[in-house]
Amino acid sequence: MSDRLKHTDTPALLTELPEWKRFALTAQTCAPRPDALDLIEAPGLALDSSGQRHSPELMAAGEALLRARDFEAQRARLLAGEVVNLTEDRAAWHTLLRAPESTPEVQAERERMDAWVRRADAGRRWRHVVHIGIGGSDWGVRLAVTAFGYAGTWRDVRFVANIDGHAIEGGLAGLDPRETLVVLVSKSFTTAETLENGARAREWLAGAGLDPANHLVAVTARPDRARAWGVPENQIFQLWDWVGGRFSLWSAVSLSTALAVGVDVLEGLRAGAAAMDAHFVQAPLAENAPVRMALAGVANRSVLGHGSLNIAPYDSRLANLVPYIQQLDMESLGKSVDVAGRPVGVPTGPAVWGMPGTDAQHTFFQWMHQGSDGAPVDFILCREADHHWPAHHRQLLANCLAQREALMRGKTLAQARAECLAEGLDAARADWLAPHRVHPGGRPNHLIALPRLSPYSLGALLALYEHRVFTQGVIWGIDPFDQWGVEYGKVLARGIIAELGPDASAAEGSPAAGADSRDRSGPDGHAPAVRHDASTRHWIERLRSSTP
Amino acid sequence: MSDRLKHTDTPALLTELPEWKRFALTAQTCAPRPDALDLIEAPGLALDSSGQRHSPELMAAGEALLRARDFEAQRARLLAGEVVNLTEDRAAWHTLLRAPESTPEVQAERERMDAWVRRADAGRRWRHVVHIGIGGSDWGVRLAVTAFGYAGTWRDVRFVANIDGHAIEGGLAGLDPRETLVVLVSKSFTTAETLENGARAREWLAGAGLDPANHLVAVTARPDRARAWGVPENQIFQLWDWVGGRFSLWSAVSLSTALAVGVDVLEGLRAGAAAMDAHFVQAPLAENAPVRMALAGVANRSVLGHGSLNIAPYDSRLANLVPYIQQLDMESLGKSVDVAGRPVGVPTGPAVWGMPGTDAQHTFFQWMHQGSDGAPVDFILCREADHHWPAHHRQLLANCLAQREALMRGKTLAQARAECLAEGLDAARADWLAPHRVHPGGRPNHLIALPRLSPYSLGALLALYEHRVFTQGVIWGIDPFDQWGVEYGKVLARGIIAELGPDASAAEGSPAAGADSRDRSGPDGHAPAVRHDASTRHWIERLRSSTP
Repeated sequence: MSDRLKHTDTPALLTELPEWKRFALTAQTCAPRPDALDLIEAPGLALDSSGQRHSPELMAAGEALLRARDFEAQRARLLAGEVVNLTEDRAAWHTLLRAPESTPEVQAERERMDAWVRRADAGRRWRHVVHIGIGGSDWGVRLAVTAFGYAGTWRDVRFVANIDGHAIEGGLAGLDPRETLVVLVSKSFTTAETLENGARAREWLAGAGLDPANHLVAVTARPDRARAWGVPENQIFQLWDWVGGRFSLWSAVSLSTALAVGVDVLEGLRAGAAAMDAHFVQAPLAENAPVRMALAGVANRSVLGHGSLNIAPYDSRLANLVPYIQQLDMESLGKSVDVAGRPVGVPTGPAVWGMPGTDAQHTFFQWMHQGSDGAPVDFILCREADHHWPAHHRQLLANCLAQREALMRGKTLAQARAECLAEGLDAARADWLAPHRVHPGGRPNHLIALPRLSPYSLGALLALYEHRVFTQGVIWGIDPFDQWGVEYGKVLARGIIAELGPDASAAEGSPAAGADSRDRSGPDGHAPAVRHDASTRHWIERLRSSTP
Repeated sequence: MSDRLKHTDTPALLTELPEWKRFALTAQTCAPRPDALDLIEAPGLALDSSGQRHSPELMAAGEALLRARDFEAQRARLLAGEVVNLTEDRAAWHTLLRAPESTPEVQAERERMDAWVRRADAGRRWRHVVHIGIGGSDWGVRLAVTAFGYAGTWRDVRFVANIDGHAIEGGLAGLDPRETLVVLVSKSFTTAETLENGARAREWLAGAGLDPANHLVAVTARPDRARAWGVPENQIFQLWDWVGGRFSLWSAVSLSTALAVGVDVLEGLRAGAAAMDAHFVQAPLAENAPVRMALAGVANRSVLGHGSLNIAPYDSRLANLVPYIQQLDMESLGKSVDVAGRPVGVPTGPAVWGMPGTDAQHTFFQWMHQGSDGAPVDFILCREADHHWPAHHRQLLANCLAQREALMRGKTLAQARAECLAEGLDAARADWLAPHRVHPGGRPNHLIALPRLSPYSLGALLALYEHRVFTQGVIWGIDPFDQWGVEYGKVLARGIIAELGPDASAAEGSPAAGADSRDRSGPDGHAPAVRHDASTRHWIERLRSSTP
């Protein structure tokens, strides 16, 4: 094991720090003060924290806490590409992928991909693109394609992620194989979902009398495996071990984005993210947007006890921002031990969920207003729209501001009763009904305003969330870059697949499967035989008969 | 006010009931016992509750609690169409819409719609359908169309819900107006989003030189308003005041479903739901699927403190089940006062969120396994697939069972250490790494298994959730059918719309807008002038300049 891990990276336990106790106490006693405007103008966006607990005292306590966590040194290590993913002993250097001055290797791969896309564009090749990837190999591309191709693109891009056969069936249905490019994205090139779905696509191409090799592109950190799988060398694009899956849209993983909405979009995304990286490094902590969001996030979760965080983009083009941030936040902060393996001692990452407004208002905002807890909300809006109906945009923005105001302000019993009377109810009915119309208010929120939904602003927004998550990891003292919880279920699944039927799956039988040592629990790549509980046994028995 | 409300419907406060105290104590001390199979075979599905707290003592305590809440009488009132929505003084009689013996009025409207769709089918009319509705006028249709039309349908159905102009822009982009039917769904026919989007569609039709009246259909409880808006009489289908929005897919709201995947699908959905209704009435409480889910839901939320509920359909066709249940559950149970207006005294409805597996495994299952809290999960699977790749289905089912087992079973420090050593790590590294690979386990779950994704099974599944939600409402003593929290933001929005720009919006200016008295806060339909907080004032000022 590396000495680094053992000796220099054991932080103090959070809850033993006097700085933590002061921060917690100060947050507890500080009210939300929407009447004191608390605004940061950052690259590509403005962050309004007026709806969170905020005060000079709380900020001072937060700065002291960050100093006690050695935050500035940790941030420097992240951005210098040092080992920050301690349990996997590697860097998390996605910022390099968007840095204005990157390495020749990164630059060359980017240029190679751009050139490939431009050639395809020039030749009007590939009317259909089937993007096959899952999790980090999927959400970032979906997000960008929906954001900038919301009204359709000349290339029809389909996304296939799930191992469920209906996904690949639906993904290929109705396409002309001659005009179809299949893009396979898997960092390890062992992901079961992606290889199985890829195999179906390959069969479909071959079944149409085509040579699949001419229709396949791969993006992977293991070009050797992609070649062995049948992708020609010059159609393989590279990412690197130091790029985590949930940070990989800055790499060639975004090839399908470039095919759908143009390589310039990628350039814009990178420029916005790089500008946010610079802000994260340079802005004083009190005016540092990711840092301020992180402090609010820790206060909401670990001090005030909010178990979830709602993401409310008031822009229908940002529907896929929700799963994107879900993965970024929950895979990173869904840990309960610190880097030294000790329980953190306070609740860490919240459940992240959401939906674009105004849809969300008609789906679950009832609960936000009057439920037992409600949840902190990140409202996101674009000041300018890209359509030509100002009345729509005005209503959209007004709804965003109104929901936010209602959640902060609430409505008292006296107000509710007065309202009932004003509607013409008699006094007895007003007395009876008013308690049902009380809103407690005081729900915390951020408001993030983009000038408009440009690639630059979206890039800045994504980097804002990345660094917010990283900073929360530093405060809690956890490794935000590993995902051991994802691995365990995979191992158990392998055993149950075998128990459900006689024939091993195609991916399992392939040379690539199980080749990643972190995926293995024994030399044969299968889980050791486990004695299942009665319920699991029941379902294995019953489902075996229905999967011939 | 109705006497009913005042005198006969004030239940005891939950927390003062000895039956509640016994239930809470028993649930607290009862461990999950996946080794004791707890299975109910209900119409259209099987429910496995082995992964929840369960024991004969807990069941007895639950039955006593339900008796103390007068559950059987309340259930009878629901199904007889009596007033169960007390704060709005009306019935919630959606079960009538699927009853084998319905009323002549319901039956006639159903037949009229079926006939209309069959005529359109016979004439191969409407290659494109633009379904315009939001919330309850949207999710049920999206759910059914995605479930049964996942591989495409000959009619291309687009959904437009959000007031965001990009939604209607994208919804109409690329369509041939001559071949396009626009379906407007709004119970009140005053919903701002739906009328604004409808107005854009109407302009688009007229701009193509067509008579919009020939291309418009409306589904509403207010045919008079639809007629005034320009929809011809024979293209208006009816729902009724006693059908709540979130229960409205059983009505003509599902017209677009019928156009996309056939009227037979609607028949199947209704038959499955009706069978579940009968089960809900007839099955003994211990074998009553909705009742058992409700008791588990109350125990998880109000006793064990789980703040959220994850919905994990292991079927990519059920992606829209998540927002559907979100609305059903959170609008119904996002209340914190009981029907008598008193604080319930325990936390009520959880945050509901989720995503189809296996996507969810690559997005947030890390958090489910190793985060501070995790969440109870409803796993949903289909025993048989409708595609032809058994290996895919076997892997899908194995992943579902494996994730469930991992969440129940967990992994101890000793197991994690042994695993590290088996992978070849040295002892020091294994000691260091093992705590990061510990899984606490013991997370509660349901497993719901459909034989396959038929309309019958999906109908049963939706009714299962409806009655589960209703039963939780009875236990908590709240009105699950109102949504006062939704109304408040609307009122504030109206004021801010006016402040953001000079011209009132089209919907605001129309005769229909604001005509629903529950939408109004004053005689002019606008909110009384409010003094905004500094942050809201800042944004109104700043956004005014960007919405010319």
